[in-house]
Amino acid sequence: MTERVGVAVIGLNGAVATTAAAGVAMIRAGSNDLSGLPLARRSIEGMAAYRDLYFGGWDLSHDDLATAALRHGVIGDKELSNGASSLSGMKPWPAVGSTDFCANIDGANKIAAPGHRAAVERIQADLAGFKQDQGLDRVVMVSLASTERKADLEADALSSLDGFERGLDADDAAISPAMLYAYAAIDAGVPYANFTPSVAADVAPLAELARTRNVAVAGKDGKTGQTLLKTVIAPALRDRALHVDGWFSTNILGNSDGLALDDPKSLASKVGTKKSVLDQMLGYPVEDDIIMIHYYKPRGDDKEAWDNIDITGFLGQKMQLKLNFLCKDSVLAAPLAIEIARCLDLAQQRGQCGVQEQLGVLLKMPQTAGNYDPIHAFNEQQLILDRWLEDGE
Amino acid sequence: MTERVGVAVIGLNGAVATTAAAGVAMIRAGSNDLSGLPLARRSIEGMAAYRDLYFGGWDLSHDDLATAALRHGVIGDKELSNGASSLSGMKPWPAVGSTDFCANIDGANKIAAPGHRAAVERIQADLAGFKQDQGLDRVVMVSLASTERKADLEADALSSLDGFERGLDADDAAISPAMLYAYAAIDAGVPYANFTPSVAADVAPLAELARTRNVAVAGKDGKTGQTLLKTVIAPALRDRALHVDGWFSTNILGNSDGLALDDPKSLASKVGTKKSVLDQMLGYPVEDDIIMIHYYKPRGDDKEAWDNIDITGFLGQKMQLKLNFLCKDSVLAAPLAIEIARCLDLAQQRGQCGVQEQLGVLLKMPQTAGNYDPIHAFNEQQLILDRWLEDGE
Amino acid sequence: MTERVGVAVIGLNGAVATTAAAGVAMIRAGSNDLSGLPLARRSIEGMAAYRDLYFGGWDLSHDDLATAALRHGVIGDKELSNGASSLSGMKPWPAVGSTDFCANIDGANKIAAPGHRAAVERIQADLAGFKQDQGLDRVVMVSLASTERKADLEADALSSLDGFERGLDADDAAISPAMLYAYAAIDAGVPYANFTPSVAADVAPLAELARTRNVAVAGKDGKTGQTLLKTVIAPALRDRALHVDGWFSTNILGNSDGLALDDPKSLASKVGTKKSVLDQMLGYPVEDDIIMIHYYKPRGDDKEAWDNIDITGFLGQKMQLKLNFLCKDSVLAAPLAIEIARCLDLAQQRGQCGVQEQLGVLLKMPQTAGNYDPIHAFNEQQLILDRWLEDGE
Amino acid sequence: MTERVGVAVIGLNGAVATTAAAGVAMIRAGSNDLSGLPLARRSIEGMAAYRDLYFGGWDLSHDDLATAALRHGVIGDKELSNGASSLSGMKPWPAVGSTDFCANIDGANKIAAPGHRAAVERIQADLAGFKQDQGLDRVVMVSLASTERKADLEADALSSLDGFERGLDADDAAISPAMLYAYAAIDAGVPYANFTPSVAADVAPLAELARTRNVAVAGKDGKTGQTLLKTVIAPALRDRALHVDGWFSTNILGNSDGLALDDPKSLASKVGTKKSVLDQMLGYPVEDDIIMIHYYKPRGDDKEAWDNIDITGFLGQKMQLKLNFLCKDSVLAAPLAIEIARCLDLAQQRGQCGVQEQLGVLLKMPQTAGNYDPIHAFNEQQLILDRWLEDGE
Repeated sequence: MTERVGVAVIGLNGAVATTAAAGVAMIRAGSNDLSGLPLARRSIEGMAAYRDLYFGGWDLSHDDLATAALRHGVIGDKELSNGASSLSGMKPWPAVGSTDFCANIDGANKIAAPGHRAAVERIQADLAGFKQDQGLDRVVMVSLASTERKADLEADALSSLDGFERGLDADDAAISPAMLYAYAAIDAGVPYANFTPSVAADVAPLAELARTRNVAVAGKDGKTGQTLLKTVIAPALRDRALHVDGWFSTNILGNSDGLALDDPKSLASKVGTKKSVLDQMLGYPVEDDIIMIHYYKPRGDDKEAWDNIDITGFLGQKMQLKLNFLCKDSVLAAPLAIEIARCLDLAQQRGQCGVQEQLGVLLKMPQTAGNYDPIHAFNEQQLILDRWLEDGE
Repeated sequence: MTERVGVAVIGLNGAVATTAAAGVAMIRAGSNDLSGLPLARRSIEGMAAYRDLYFGGWDLSHDDLATAALRHGVIGDKELSNGASSLSGMKPWPAVGSTDFCANIDGANKIAAPGHRAAVERIQADLAGFKQDQGLDRVVMVSLASTERKADLEADALSSLDGFERGLDADDAAISPAMLYAYAAIDAGVPYANFTPSVAADVAPLAELARTRNVAVAGKDGKTGQTLLKTVIAPALRDRALHVDGWFSTNILGNSDGLALDDPKSLASKVGTKKSVLDQMLGYPVEDDIIMIHYYKPRGDDKEAWDNIDITGFLGQKMQLKLNFLCKDSVLAAPLAIEIARCLDLAQQRGQCGVQEQLGVLLKMPQTAGNYDPIHAFNEQQLILDRWLEDGE
Repeated sequence: MTERVGVAVIGLNGAVATTAAAGVAMIRAGSNDLSGLPLARRSIEGMAAYRDLYFGGWDLSHDDLATAALRHGVIGDKELSNGASSLSGMKPWPAVGSTDFCANIDGANKIAAPGHRAAVERIQADLAGFKQDQGLDRVVMVSLASTERKADLEADALSSLDGFERGLDADDAAISPAMLYAYAAIDAGVPYANFTPSVAADVAPLAELARTRNVAVAGKDGKTGQTLLKTVIAPALRDRALHVDGWFSTNILGNSDGLALDDPKSLASKVGTKKSVLDQMLGYPVEDDIIMIHYYKPRGDDKEAWDNIDITGFLGQKMQLKLNFLCKDSVLAAPLAIEIARCLDLAQQRGQCGVQEQLGVLLKMPQTAGNYDPIHAFNEQQLILDRWLEDGE
Repeated sequence: MTERVGVAVIGLNGAVATTAAAGVAMIRAGSNDLSGLPLARRSIEGMAAYRDLYFGGWDLSHDDLATAALRHGVIGDKELSNGASSLSGMKPWPAVGSTDFCANIDGANKIAAPGHRAAVERIQADLAGFKQDQGLDRVVMVSLASTERKADLEADALSSLDGFERGLDADDAAISPAMLYAYAAIDAGVPYANFTPSVAADVAPLAELARTRNVAVAGKDGKTGQTLLKTVIAPALRDRALHVDGWFSTNILGNSDGLALDDPKSLASKVGTKKSVLDQMLGYPVEDDIIMIHYYKPRGDDKEAWDNIDITGFLGQKMQLKLNFLCKDSVLAAPLAIEIARCLDLAQQRGQCGVQEQLGVLLKMPQTAGNYDPIHAFNEQQLILDRWLEDGE
C-alpha cells in the first residue's frame, strides 16, 4: 500500500514551488518523463514515489498556483492542460511575512497573528489541517521563500534554545519568519529543509531542538547552476595542480528571486553563503573570488551565469577558463527540492535525526551537524549520498 | 641514494617535450615551483623525484632543444637563462619517420636504417647508449610524436605477435614508426607510454608482448584541455539527470600538432580517439557529439577550445552550457607526460606489468588490459589513481 | 488604390519562406508589430506595403505551408491561429530539382518537364497563373531554395547569352535549376532576387539578359547573422587601426539549410561566398580567415555562431574579441527577403534595371553591375541604401 | 622645419600615459610600427607628426616613468631597452591631489600650494617651464588622471564663470583638482583634453572660458573597449530593426583605474558617463541597461568585458548576442590620447576654438558645444572626423 507524503512549502506561489507542484502533478498524469530528477533512476527501499507527493503551503500572495505559475513563465498553458490542471484549484495558506527581513517582497495574504507564539500555532495548525484534509501519512516542510536579510546571530534569542523560547514570548525582532516556520515544523516533529540562503534551522537553538526532538533537518540553499559548476570544476583543477588565481562569477536573472537579491541586505546573505566554498575545495585562499547577482528583467526565470577563472599551470603559465550557463533557475531547483523532501522523509523513517549531512550534494552551503566545515566538492558529496541511499549510512 | 631515471622521448624537439625538459631542468635549478604537476604534493614511496629525471630522445629535426623551444614559443629566453640553459647542449638522436603515416611532418634528422629490424636495433642501441652516457639507473620511453594516420588494424602484421614479427622481417607497410619504437622499448624491457593518439602499443601484438616480457605500458593521448573538461562535467550532468542532447566542441591551435591534425587522415585518428567518451560516461548515446580541430596560426601553442552543450532538464526544458578554455597545449601536456613517466617507472619497480589502467585519469583514451571499455569519468579515474598511489593496487 | 504585389518564391516550403509568408499574413491580420523589418519605420513613395504582398511559389515538397512551417518549428500553433491560418490553404507548385546540384535535398513535388526549355515554360506559366489567380498588379521572384553546388563557370553555356540559349536547347548539365528559374523570371520581365549562395542571375549570360530586358535583379545570399556582425565590426577595427591577425568563425545549425551545407560541395559554394569579405573591408589579407558550418540537430532553426578574432594594437600588443550569437536563422532572414522583394519591385517601377547594387546591405556577397568588387562594410552599404530610398539614386 | 609639440599630462605615471610616452619614444627610435594609431595612415596638412610629440606632466607619485611603466606591466624591459630608455630619465612634476575627490588614489608627490589660486599658478608655471626646457613650439594638456567622484554641479562655483572665479579665491570645495588643471590650461591658452570620466572643462564656467579665450577643448572619457563595441553594434541593430530588450555589461580589470572605480562614488561618475548612450543611439529607452565594473587583480591592465544583449526580431522572436573582449586597457587608450592631442593642436592652429565636437569618435561621452546631446553611433562619428580631417570642417 502506498503512503501519501505531504510537502508543505513556504513560498508556495514562487517559481520553484509551482514548477515542482506542476511537475509532480504531471508525473501522476503520466505526462512528465522524470528527466532532471537526480534520483529517478534509482530504486530505494522506503523512499516515497514522486507520484505520492502532495503539495500545500504558505504564500503572501492570494493567487491560485496556476495563476502564479503562468506569471513566472516557467511552465505555460501547455503544461497546465497537460496534467497540471489541478494547480488552478490550489491556493496557498496565509503566510508570515516581514518587510524588515525581506524588503522587496510583500503581499496581502498574511497571517493575522498577534505575535511569534500565535504565528507558530497557526503554522502548526496549518500542518495538521493539511495532513488531515489530504489524508497524508507524513509531512515534510520545505522552505522555498525569498531570501531574508542576514540574521543577527549574536542576539540572545539566537544563542540558545532557552533564549529562543524567551524570544518567542517577547516577539523578539531577531527571530525571522523563516525561523518561526522552522521552529513550528521541528516542534511538531515534521522534517524541515531550508532550500533558501536565509538563516533558519541552522541557528544554534533550532539545531539543538532538531536533535532533542529527533527530527531530520537539512539546509541550506539549493545547489543549482553556477555553484554546481564551481563545485564540479574546482576539484578537478586541484587534482591537476592548476592554481586558481581568481574566479569571477556574475549572474543575471529576472525572477522574484533576483528582485529579492537586489536588496543589498539579502544579497549579502546570499553571497556570504557562497563565498568560502572555493577556498575549502582548493585548500588555499583565492584572493579574487567575486560573485555578483543582478536583477535583469528580460530573462524572467531564465538565469544566466558567466564565470571567468584565471589559472596558473606548469612554469607559471597563465590560462583562462570561461563558463556561460544559460539555465532555468526553477527548472534546476524544483527537482532538487523534490529530492530533498523525499530524502528527509526517508531519513525520518530510518530514525536518522538532526542535520542530514549526506544531502550536501543538493545544497550550496551544507549545514553540518557539528562545528566543522562542510564538504563542497561535488564528486565527494555524490559518493556520500550514493552510499547513504544504498547502505543507509 | 637517489636513482637517476631517463626519459627517452619520441619527438624530443616538440613543444611538449621541450617544455617538459625545460621544466625539469628548472626544478633542478630551483626556479620552478612545481605548479601544474598533479602529483607534486604527494610523497610516494619509490617514485622518482622530478629532479632525478633526465631527458633524451629522437626527433626528425637536428635542432638543439633550446632552439626548438624558442621556435615553439612556450618558454622564452627568460626560462632558458633561468635554469634551462642546459637545453642548448641537448640534441635529438636521428628518428624513424614516415610521411606515409604523418603527412605534414618531416625532417632531415632521419635514421639511415635499411628496414624495420634495423630501425628497431638502432632504437635499442640509442636506449642503451642513453643509459650508459647519462649514468641512468632506469629508462622509460614516452611517445610525444605527431599524430600518425589511422592504422590498418585488420592487417596480418597487426593481428598477432607472430604476424608482427613476420611483418618486421618483411618491412610490412602496416607497421608504423610508432609501433617500431613501442616494440623496441618493450623488447628491451623499457616501460613505454603513448602520449599521442597514434596506434602503438595498443595493437594486439604489442599488448601481448608487454605482458609476456613483463613490461609496464600505458596509453593513449594525454588528457589535457577539452576532453579533461568533458570528463569532469559530463558525470555531474549525469548525476543531476540533465540529459545531454548535443555536445559541439571546436578547437583552434597553431602549433605543429595542429598542423599534423590538418591532414584529414591524422584528424580521423584523433577524433576517433575522442568520440565515444561521452556516450560511455552518460550511459546513453549522444547523437550530436561533434569534435572539430582547426589549425589557426595566430595562436601558436595557445590552444583554445569552445564547447556548446545542449541539455534537457525537468519538464523537458532546454538549457545550454558553453565552455571557453584559453589554454596552453604544452603547458598542460608536459606535466602529464612527466607524471606518466614517473608512474610507469614506479609500476615497473613494483612489478606491475602490462597495461597500467590506473593511469587512465591522465589519458584521453585509456588503454585497457582486456577487451572492455575504459572508465572515462574524471572523478572515478582520480579515485583509482589515488588508491594505486597510496595502496599500491 | 493599393496595388497587389506577388512574391513568387523558389523554396516556398522552407523555413525562411514560411516565416515570411506567415509574418505578412499576420501583418494583414494586425497581429505582427513589424519588429525586425528594417524598412518598417520609413515611408517610401511607391514602395509596396507589407500588407499588399502575396506569396506563392515552388517547392519539391507537397505539403501545405502550415504543415511545413510547423515542421521547421520557427512559428507554432499560436502564430498559425493568430493571423497565419491562411497558410494551411497554400500549397507550393511543383518545382525543378536536381540532386546533382543539391545532393541532400530532394522531394516528390517535381515538375514533369522533359528538358530545360519545357521547365522554363512551366515556370513562366506558373508566374502568369499566379498573377491572374491572385489578381496581382506585379510579381517579383525570390530564390529561397537550398544551396546548390558550385557551378562550372567556364562552361560554354555560362559564358555568353548565346551559349546559354544553346545550352537550354541542349539540356546542358552546366545549367542549374537556379539558373532556369532566374532565366524564366528575367525573360518574363519579372524582377529576380537570389537570397541563396547558389550561382544564378550572376552568371554572365543572365546578367546580360537582365540589362537587355530592363529587369531589376539582386543577389546574393542574405546577410543575416555572422556575416552581418563581421561587416559591422571589421570596419570599426580598421578605423581604430587594430590589425586583424585571424578571424575564426564557426556555426552550428540544425535546419534543412544546415543539412544542405553538410554536402561538402554546397559548403564550398557557401564558404566561397563569404571568404574574401574580410580582406576587402580591411584593406589587407587576413591569412587566417576560417569559416566553418556544422549541421547540429539539437538546435533546429536556432543557429548559433561563435567567432574568435585575434587583433594586434599599439606596441604590437595582442588582444582577442569573441562573439557568440544565438540567433534564429529564418527570423533574421525572412524580413530581409521581404525587403528585397519590396525594393526590387520599387526599382523596377522606377525603371532602374540590371543589378541593384544599393541592396548590398541585405546581402552577403553583393552582385555588382560590372567587373569590380562590392562594398562589404555595413555602414557604407546602409548609407547607400538610405540615399537610394530617399533620393531615388 | 618640424615643430615640437608638448603633451602635458595629468597622471603622467599612469598606465595610459607611460604607454603613450613609451610608444612615441619608440616611434622616434624606429621600433614601433604605428599599429593601433587610428590616424597613422593619413596625411593631414598641419598635424604634428608622432615623432614630434614630447611628453611631460604631473603625478602624485615620485617615480620615474620607466619604474612606473614596469609596475603597470603594459610594457616591459624589452620595450624600455628597445627605444623607450628615455623614460627612466623622466620624472613627473608634483601634482594637485584630493582624496575627497578620488578616495583610493593618493601619493606623496603633491604640490605644496596653499590654495586654489596658488595651485593654478603652479600649474601654469609648470607649463611655461615645460615649453622652455624642451624647446617646444606649442603645448597641449591631456588629463589621464584617475576618475574623481561626481561633482556638485548645482554649486555656485560651477554655475557661472564669475562664480568659479570667486570659488578660486575662496578655495571652494566644489572645485576639483581636475577643474583647476583645466582652468590653468585654458587661462594660459593651452588646448585641454579630458580623457577621463571626471567633470572638468565641461562645467559651464570652463566651457565659457574656452570660448572667450579661443582655446580648443575636448572631452570626455576615451572610448576604448566595451563602449566602443556598443557604439559599433547598436546602430546596426537599429538599422536591422532588431529591438534591444536589455544590454548587460560587466568589466573586470586590475589596474589602478579599476581600483579607483571600486570607490562607489567614482563608479557612479563612470557609469553615469556611459548610461544613456544606448538609448540615444537606438531611439527608444532600453529598460535594462546595466553596466558593472569590478576590480579583479589577476588581470592587471588586461581588461575583460562581457556583454549580453537580448534582442527581439521578426514575429517577436527572442535572440541573444554575447561579446567577450579580452583587451588591454592602456594599449587601446594610449593611441586615442595621442590622437586627441594631435587633433586639438591642429584645431588650435586652425583657429577652431571651444568644444571640438568632431573628436567625439574618440570619446565615450562627447562634450557638445551647446545644450544638446552628442552623437554616439561610431559610424556617424567617424564620418564627422573624416570630414574635418580632410576638409577642415
